[in-house]
Amino acid sequence: MSLKQLKPLKKTVSEYSVTGRLRISSILDSEDGGISYIGKKVTIAGWARTVRKQCSDTLLFISLNDGSTPKSLQCVVEKTSKGFDDGLKTSVGCSFRVTGTIVKSPADGQPVELLLNTNDDELKVYGYCDASKYPLSKKHHPREFLREIAHLRPRSQFFSSVLRIRNSLAIAIHEYFQRNGFLYIHTPIITAADCEGAGEMFRVTTLLPVDDDTTKLSTIPTTKLEGSNELIIDCKKDFFGKASFLTVSGQLALETVACSMSDVYTFGPTFRAENSHTSRHLAEFWMIEPEMAFSDLTDCMNLGEELLKYTVEYVLENNISDLEYLDKNIEKGLIERLKVICSNQFARISYTEAIEMLKPHDKEFTVPVTWGMDMGSEHERYLTDVIEKKPCIIYNYPKDIKSFYMKLNDDEKTVAAMDILVPKIGEVIGGSQREDDIIKLENAIKNKNMNPEPYWWYNDLRKYGSVPHSGFGLGFERLIMMITGVENVRDVIPFPRYPNHCDF
Amino acid sequence: MSLKQLKPLKKTVSEYSVTGRLRISSILDSEDGGISYIGKKVTIAGWARTVRKQCSDTLLFISLNDGSTPKSLQCVVEKTSKGFDDGLKTSVGCSFRVTGTIVKSPADGQPVELLLNTNDDELKVYGYCDASKYPLSKKHHPREFLREIAHLRPRSQFFSSVLRIRNSLAIAIHEYFQRNGFLYIHTPIITAADCEGAGEMFRVTTLLPVDDDTTKLSTIPTTKLEGSNELIIDCKKDFFGKASFLTVSGQLALETVACSMSDVYTFGPTFRAENSHTSRHLAEFWMIEPEMAFSDLTDCMNLGEELLKYTVEYVLENNISDLEYLDKNIEKGLIERLKVICSNQFARISYTEAIEMLKPHDKEFTVPVTWGMDMGSEHERYLTDVIEKKPCIIYNYPKDIKSFYMKLNDDEKTVAAMDILVPKIGEVIGGSQREDDIIKLENAIKNKNMNPEPYWWYNDLRKYGSVPHSGFGLGFERLIMMITGVENVRDVIPFPRYPNHCDF
Repeated sequence: MSLKQLKPLKKTVSEYSVTGRLRISSILDSEDGGISYIGKKVTIAGWARTVRKQCSDTLLFISLNDGSTPKSLQCVVEKTSKGFDDGLKTSVGCSFRVTGTIVKSPADGQPVELLLNTNDDELKVYGYCDASKYPLSKKHHPREFLREIAHLRPRSQFFSSVLRIRNSLAIAIHEYFQRNGFLYIHTPIITAADCEGAGEMFRVTTLLPVDDDTTKLSTIPTTKLEGSNELIIDCKKDFFGKASFLTVSGQLALETVACSMSDVYTFGPTFRAENSHTSRHLAEFWMIEPEMAFSDLTDCMNLGEELLKYTVEYVLENNISDLEYLDKNIEKGLIERLKVICSNQFARISYTEAIEMLKPHDKEFTVPVTWGMDMGSEHERYLTDVIEKKPCIIYNYPKDIKSFYMKLNDDEKTVAAMDILVPKIGEVIGGSQREDDIIKLENAIKNKNMNPEPYWWYNDLRKYGSVPHSGFGLGFERLIMMITGVENVRDVIPFPRYPNHCDF
Repeated sequence: MSLKQLKPLKKTVSEYSVTGRLRISSILDSEDGGISYIGKKVTIAGWARTVRKQCSDTLLFISLNDGSTPKSLQCVVEKTSKGFDDGLKTSVGCSFRVTGTIVKSPADGQPVELLLNTNDDELKVYGYCDASKYPLSKKHHPREFLREIAHLRPRSQFFSSVLRIRNSLAIAIHEYFQRNGFLYIHTPIITAADCEGAGEMFRVTTLLPVDDDTTKLSTIPTTKLEGSNELIIDCKKDFFGKASFLTVSGQLALETVACSMSDVYTFGPTFRAENSHTSRHLAEFWMIEPEMAFSDLTDCMNLGEELLKYTVEYVLENNISDLEYLDKNIEKGLIERLKVICSNQFARISYTEAIEMLKPHDKEFTVPVTWGMDMGSEHERYLTDVIEKKPCIIYNYPKDIKSFYMKLNDDEKTVAAMDILVPKIGEVIGGSQREDDIIKLENAIKNKNMNPEPYWWYNDLRKYGSVPHSGFGLGFERLIMMITGVENVRDVIPFPRYPNHCDF
């Protein structure tokens, strides 16, 4: 099965644009590394990663990158070419359009370079850059520093590789579902429901005006609490006539669509207002949630395993230059680890089996192993990294530690839930078969002490032609971390949102 | 150029699922309408659009739909087949798994049907449905009524067609950009910046607690206004340490990525807290925004025109059954109108020319035509529907009615902005070349009386290797309306959000 990227259009916009430029990837990422371009006149454009002048100022070396590939094209500019004098005033960060001839490179590590040595050749400076103020340089920058300049971060080799892989993964996910006959559905972002029956949510409101620092308390509409003089905020005056929130999951809404269109998925932003400062949590992140009618938990596990393998294979096929950079600079052995994910069947272990497997190793853990516990990452990591040494699917969890909507198993103690755990990363997928029996669903809502009222429409699905169905959530940033080896979630999203950080 | 959907996987999940079902589209949407399946034993699953019993109760006719196609497969169930007695208790809305043999249909309008007449054949009822309570029936339901039952709405033929086209359009857009070498970028949803320098935004906050009706005013953290005793809300105590909002556009953030990765796009939700009750506005909608480095306004117009034509052709190629349904039931002549969009060059008219063209028809308008005005939809519609009779691109607008980030033209009166207007629909795309001169940008911010402080990072792009670049915004729901002929934006999104409406 070929997972090659979609065929490029016959003529891309960049080629017929005012610049008429060829992407640098078209040259350097072609199968022969650009050899077939030798002798051809081409125009490229981009930003200088380095500019070097020969002492006598008769020769310029500009390493140009346009973001299409981690590789930069070396431009060798001779004094005879147009724009040479402007070029002398440039440095790292400047932007150029460059027209010259592709020639074989005498240097190591690059098969070709771009030579400017005639009056036909042209170096055009688009924008200068004061190197003394420019925060980026050739040297390696700590990732914490790069986060502070998120607007320039994609100019670093590290982050541009992450962004290209992020793009590939998003497309691989869409391709996988489309080729499988799933429909892409946009579930709502603003919601009055709460999927998990709890959770720390952001409130969305027009009760607090937009002007920043001077919102007077007295402008908030209030009403009196029944039987008291205490002022309470009047939610009926809010935009939606009631309190509304940012979604924590599209699942419940998605189930309504699955119960008529059969196979659907959503891929959108989700939010948690957790005051969490770990390297694994963001306040805003993207999630993929498929939902399949006419399926059980095994189908759900199959779907999850197949999807993960598809995305890994896709990136191995289409982003090998980026993976090589990350393998060298971020996680040694990354590519090998990815190949292991693709080439092995994931272990499938029931929760009860997992507890039995862990018990003999109890002394390894800070929290002792008992049936009924919510496994911590120390336990999960032991299963994946020490015992199985490959991804594991744990299924049939105790009902008390799982959500109300999960299907109760015949033992009446466990529910048909599953998590997919990956070595070094932990949980990337959590899913379940959904309770499709209206009596059992209503009982579960009652037993969890939830208010049944907001779920009338969700329950309707079990009254009008209920079907067995299942689905899961895949955290997109978690997936990117798994595939890039990047250890901090703030380094796999363009503009990370976390407590006290909402810049740019 | 073929715009056929991606090739299905060799074996899709639905086929190897516990149901082992074939999608109904695989049969009825195949080139011969299912003739090649005649004699084959197949399993399908879905919901009954109708159930008819023969008076003598020896024969059942179930019209089954699984959401994969607007067409339903007629199942003819004879008394000899397994599950027949359960089938007698069913009605519209029930869900089934059905195994039988595909046979030539004697009825008009369907080449094949599914026959159950042996003990091998099986009708399995997944879920019953009380027809007396079920809100949907065979009859045509008003679209206002369907909105009230958004959780069941995809079961209507109308809305399922809209959802399939919505899916196709989303995928067509990704395919177009990917084949053009653009990277998909997720710009932030929660933001402290305001793209348009104004706009009615939703506030995102944790200052108002999550519990609904009883939030006491006294729980909101306050501080005192300088030099006064007035209490103001203490934004520093909010989750992000300052006021934050839902994005109205990803453009500014996207420009930062374009100024290093060259060609990028975003496709995500955007929000307006406008108290607007029209058929064209939602509080939450999806937007596509490409941004191209090394491009000018002409490139931007080319990109917009090509993208629109690509999406229309894609739907004509892949959703013809749905379009035929809509052509018959929603907008007569829809398919013809779509073909006109693909086969004509869009008219390109400068704003100044447009004003000159409209002036002779001044008596047709409620607002008189003058240079400098912000054209209303009456003027735009006159250009597209009466004068040109095809899509029009209007460009070079007066600077005073446009945003600060648009590139000032040499005349110093107009900016390099463009709108794409479509007959019957109005504006679907608005874009511009961006100001890449730091002096002119800072002047524009000053002249619009904006606070320059929050834009330091945006301005940085003009200091460090500035490049000519351009981009636009395409309202996704507006595009769906254009392509389906549906007149109310609330009917092209699964769960519409507008004032006082945030249900499900």
